[in-house]
Amino acid sequence: MSGKWYTQSGAQGDVIISSHVRLARNLARIPFPCRLTEQQMGEVCDLVRGAAADYARPKLTFLRMADLTANRVVSLAEKHLISPAFAEIAPGKALLLSEDETVSVMLCEDDHIRIQTARAGFEPQEAYRAADALDDHLDKKLAFAFDDRLGYLTQHPTNLGTGMRASLMMHLPALTQSFEISRLASTVAKLGLKLRGPYDDGGAKGDIYRLSNQLTFGISEAAAIENLSAVALQLATRERAARETLQQDIAFMDKIHRAYGILNSARMITSEEMNEMFSYLRLGAVFGEIPVRLETVNELSLNLQPATMKADYNENMRAPERDALRAEIIKERLRADAGEE
Amino acid sequence: MSGKWYTQSGAQGDVIISSHVRLARNLARIPFPCRLTEQQMGEVCDLVRGAAADYARPKLTFLRMADLTANRVVSLAEKHLISPAFAEIAPGKALLLSEDETVSVMLCEDDHIRIQTARAGFEPQEAYRAADALDDHLDKKLAFAFDDRLGYLTQHPTNLGTGMRASLMMHLPALTQSFEISRLASTVAKLGLKLRGPYDDGGAKGDIYRLSNQLTFGISEAAAIENLSAVALQLATRERAARETLQQDIAFMDKIHRAYGILNSARMITSEEMNEMFSYLRLGAVFGEIPVRLETVNELSLNLQPATMKADYNENMRAPERDALRAEIIKERLRADAGEE
Repeated sequence: MSGKWYTQSGAQGDVIISSHVRLARNLARIPFPCRLTEQQMGEVCDLVRGAAADYARPKLTFLRMADLTANRVVSLAEKHLISPAFAEIAPGKALLLSEDETVSVMLCEDDHIRIQTARAGFEPQEAYRAADALDDHLDKKLAFAFDDRLGYLTQHPTNLGTGMRASLMMHLPALTQSFEISRLASTVAKLGLKLRGPYDDGGAKGDIYRLSNQLTFGISEAAAIENLSAVALQLATRERAARETLQQDIAFMDKIHRAYGILNSARMITSEEMNEMFSYLRLGAVFGEIPVRLETVNELSLNLQPATMKADYNENMRAPERDALRAEIIKERLRADAGEE
Repeated sequence: MSGKWYTQSGAQGDVIISSHVRLARNLARIPFPCRLTEQQMGEVCDLVRGAAADYARPKLTFLRMADLTANRVVSLAEKHLISPAFAEIAPGKALLLSEDETVSVMLCEDDHIRIQTARAGFEPQEAYRAADALDDHLDKKLAFAFDDRLGYLTQHPTNLGTGMRASLMMHLPALTQSFEISRLASTVAKLGLKLRGPYDDGGAKGDIYRLSNQLTFGISEAAAIENLSAVALQLATRERAARETLQQDIAFMDKIHRAYGILNSARMITSEEMNEMFSYLRLGAVFGEIPVRLETVNELSLNLQPATMKADYNENMRAPERDALRAEIIKERLRADAGEE
């Protein structure tokens, strides 16, 4: 587990949890996946698998979705390695995945190929370079559907052009607390960006938001990432200013210490409560109020999601058992961070 | 502070927090306090003061209520040393109080004299003996209003006869949790007893109930206390049985550990939350789940009530400041109990 990208925290890690880039690509002269039979999808997957076989930066493992347990599939979605839609219907689909989980390639999602890369902290350029390298590699072996005027052809017109969606996971509890977040969401929308909860349902679990570019047409990848980066850094600055106010508020600091106390003592913790408590824990870590590492929070917040726990520990584990194990693991890790073990 | 009776726990202390006896007495040929002027009340107080001056088991200090700060008066009510009604209008009233707070005598409450005694744990006989000793002492020096047929004459007919009310403070969280408590309250009512919240308002803060005798006429003090004791011990047995069920319930044990975690980490704790959390803390101590002494809970639950804190620490302390100090003191005491200091 320790080699996964999300066991780390990176640049601007106090506010920016991770950076993600996704490139949508399709093979020329082959209908979009929605028009393919299961067998034809299998052929597309095999084609890409072959093209990626000698890729080594990092090496990719081929996983046929139909071969995975239901929990493992949902776990991949919990870690944002696949989309929730991709998790729903498995037949014909496949995934290329690197050991460190920095690179995942959905095969036969909405498009034939969806290259996805992830980095801890504020590293959108790095994430883009990783996606671009794999894109170059595949481009040399496969014929991508590309139009000189439209750019990369994609099933949804919203992805036409670069086919790129870059996003940053941002922890914005202070801007949420001060009710500035909705006004800021409107502002960033005018700048061609979108700010929303990480699970595409509008809800921001644990005050974590996803900031992403919306435009893929008429703007280069570099310009889109530069725009995203500039806005993200401004948001981060505002968040930090709002945090200074929170830090003067003893009632809010009380919540941080209570969250730490609960996580250190509870015998059962649901994933919903964990997400909520982790928001306080992140702030407490940044403020230096409690002896916990951001890396621990980053890792546990992904590894202790429900399906991931079932896939990792016991496929038949029921909710109360899982909540008890989650509480135990959290307690153990917090004690380790506090240097008690 | 360490000499106060409530810094201890006593027999059956897992369920029975304390034992109390109150004797209502009036001076012959003097109207009840409600018919007296402030000056006349002062004269009654001085009479009793004189009679108690040489009492030494324990020695009693005379306090004129009008000389005390408002917070100190409410603090006395918080500790059940005076009645809430006695706290409301001070002029003319006075209190005799022992250093260890086992004996308090309200002067010119509903009756001229209300002798009150307290003991930690299940000691109703002991509490009665202490009240009886002072009663004997005063009886030798003062003429009590007594009628051969009616017994001691009191303002309220409900106290006629022995003028005695014996009560036990009982911690009954498991019977509360299992919803058996209201049925049991009906049952004890048929046995001439009353089970209710400790503050006479029906609410049971921190699952603490007061069980007391209702009959003072046609039953001797000894018989009344025997009846109270027998019922209390039965209630305690039922409570312990119900606790065994709770102890199997991981969701309930979770609450105990959370309460401990919160009390160990929060930066602000209101008295309401303290009362609620202390109920879990008591159980956790009895179950041996958490390293806390019942004596600590007994002491803090009285010493950290709002007016008591203001009277003890700072008369002008406001709620947020008090909540912060309460959290700090609790944390310090819990750490001491856990052997961390």
